Amino acid sequence: MQPFTYELIKTCKQSGARLGVLHTPHGDIETPCYMPVGTQATVKAMTPRDLRDVGANIILSNTYHLYLRPGHELVREAGGLHAFMGWERPILTDSGGYQVFSLGDSNRILEDGVEFRSHHDGSRHFFTPEKVMEIEQALGADIAMCFDECAPYPSEREYARAAMERTHRWAARCKAAHTRTDQALFGIVQGGAYADLRVESAKTLADMDFIGYGIGGLSVGEPKEVMYDMLETIMPHMPADRPRYLMGVGSPDCLIEGAVRGVDMFDCVLQTRIARNGLALTKYGRRMLRNNEFAHDFAPIEEGCGCYACKNFTRAYIRHLVKAKEILAAQLITTHNLYFSLRLMEEIRQAIRDDRLLDLRREWQERGGME
Amino acid sequence: MQPFTYELIKTCKQSGARLGVLHTPHGDIETPCYMPVGTQATVKAMTPRDLRDVGANIILSNTYHLYLRPGHELVREAGGLHAFMGWERPILTDSGGYQVFSLGDSNRILEDGVEFRSHHDGSRHFFTPEKVMEIEQALGADIAMCFDECAPYPSEREYARAAMERTHRWAARCKAAHTRTDQALFGIVQGGAYADLRVESAKTLADMDFIGYGIGGLSVGEPKEVMYDMLETIMPHMPADRPRYLMGVGSPDCLIEGAVRGVDMFDCVLQTRIARNGLALTKYGRRMLRNNEFAHDFAPIEEGCGCYACKNFTRAYIRHLVKAKEILAAQLITTHNLYFSLRLMEEIRQAIRDDRLLDLRREWQERGGME
Repeated sequence: MQPFTYELIKTCKQSGARLGVLHTPHGDIETPCYMPVGTQATVKAMTPRDLRDVGANIILSNTYHLYLRPGHELVREAGGLHAFMGWERPILTDSGGYQVFSLGDSNRILEDGVEFRSHHDGSRHFFTPEKVMEIEQALGADIAMCFDECAPYPSEREYARAAMERTHRWAARCKAAHTRTDQALFGIVQGGAYADLRVESAKTLADMDFIGYGIGGLSVGEPKEVMYDMLETIMPHMPADRPRYLMGVGSPDCLIEGAVRGVDMFDCVLQTRIARNGLALTKYGRRMLRNNEFAHDFAPIEEGCGCYACKNFTRAYIRHLVKAKEILAAQLITTHNLYFSLRLMEEIRQAIRDDRLLDLRREWQERGGME
Repeated sequence: MQPFTYELIKTCKQSGARLGVLHTPHGDIETPCYMPVGTQATVKAMTPRDLRDVGANIILSNTYHLYLRPGHELVREAGGLHAFMGWERPILTDSGGYQVFSLGDSNRILEDGVEFRSHHDGSRHFFTPEKVMEIEQALGADIAMCFDECAPYPSEREYARAAMERTHRWAARCKAAHTRTDQALFGIVQGGAYADLRVESAKTLADMDFIGYGIGGLSVGEPKEVMYDMLETIMPHMPADRPRYLMGVGSPDCLIEGAVRGVDMFDCVLQTRIARNGLALTKYGRRMLRNNEFAHDFAPIEEGCGCYACKNFTRAYIRHLVKAKEILAAQLITTHNLYFSLRLMEEIRQAIRDDRLLDLRREWQERGGME
């Protein structure tokens, strides 16, 4: 089995963006890459075959959700997450750090870990760095993330510092507890919206020598300009030979702006979530297919798109499916939104190759595709 | 465009069941056949590609639902139902006769037609034979059904007679109003659970020389033995050179028992509806995949099944999807249930070819697959 490595192929002369390859036990992934989210061991409304068809190479799954249901022991018994969900390509699992704060009820942060209640049944649970490593190693993804504390936005400086420092201590404990050699462990940079804390976090984690780095605690309510500032602030302090993963971020504008600032990996539920509400991403901006304007519109979701939905169905038909609450609406719009985002990543990689990523950004801005 | 014809290939020496081919404008269909139901211009949770993969050759869609939403004029504008829903193989539309009674509110039966209220918004509508022909011709399926009155079970003899006679008068009006030469119009035999009425209906409609015949008003609450009796009673009076379609019936036992009695076509929502509740059909009987017994069961839904769901996923995984209310559960179990039923039809056709359909029935009974 090939070890996990990151290969930096080139840097865009126009923007500093990075073209690279992640070599993982389940195959190679060109970066910058977007990871569709399969929260409960399924990317909603997509079969693994559908996922391959839209060009997905790596997906994300959620440790918090899988721990609660069906339980990581069952997934281990099934042969790991790849076998359990029938997905043979790379997988990344998050650590549940974000979810215990955003979904868990009456959580209590202690130095040892976080006590929280299940959002399903109110049962009590306790996540420590060691426990999370046990869970993620049972799930057996190609990439595991350290357990972190994600401070909300806005946070007082002292709170952001305390959360960051705890995140660093937990990162060390995760590293000590992590033993799987066929799984890469990434550290997570925190520090809220404070530039100096972010730099301190990036440096501290770099010294700990992780295989890759997540950038956490962004896109949690702050203005996008703040997120972009934080990225620009920390990038000079991130090891150039390690992949950089901007966690939970992936709208079309953020994919481009993140890549411009040197991000290698993204994940986001936006694509699949808005699809289930009838909202499609296109290079001309978003289209709410439920709207009356599409009732007699026999064009595809996006003109010229090569996805299964666009090659076979019209806006009028998909609008009908949305109005009729048919499952096929979610299937088709999810297919399109994922294909759209994965194709955008291809465009971004080609633009880096051609040293014209800022030109690409301007084209997308002018067309309205970043709205 | 080839005209619509039915070709009787052979009759099973053991049972009298019929092997045949329906030649339609959108392709040939071997009979006996099962038609998956696409009520709202989509077979729930299945793309047309998925439908082809499970072996579907003809599907049914519902006139009542499409008339109300999105409206038959929109479907006509889209180029007909095949183009609208991206399905290039044959389609049959029912007439809405059953739905205006079972779904429409405060319906009122007049000689001219039926007044009913939409189950969506309570709006008033009036279906006459002529109106239904207008709608079905706008939808443009390969096979259209006459507008009929379906008497409930049980019905008084006089009520059943009145409904039957009105169905005959409406059949004549449908025939007069139907003008599309690329669409076959089927009459519908009624008569409730009264053998003499059923015979009278079969003879009357045979005299009207329809291209094919539906058998309506069965599987509406009567014991299955009554349905089988009615089939045996009418079959000698059905023209041998025309296809016989048992409407709304399609559980595994009914597919076999119907074929044994000379039925050529079936449709049923059971396969797709129970799938969305986690219930799978197998040759050993039904399996409720939600059940705890499957929590650690890493076998496929049905041992030896060749469908996409069974080749790639375990009961434990699908149970997890059902419990987690994931759309993929419906996609996978629907895939299996349709594949299962279409494969059963292949087995039935092969048994007719080999003059051993009663043997096949016994094998299915002994294995528990007809429960």
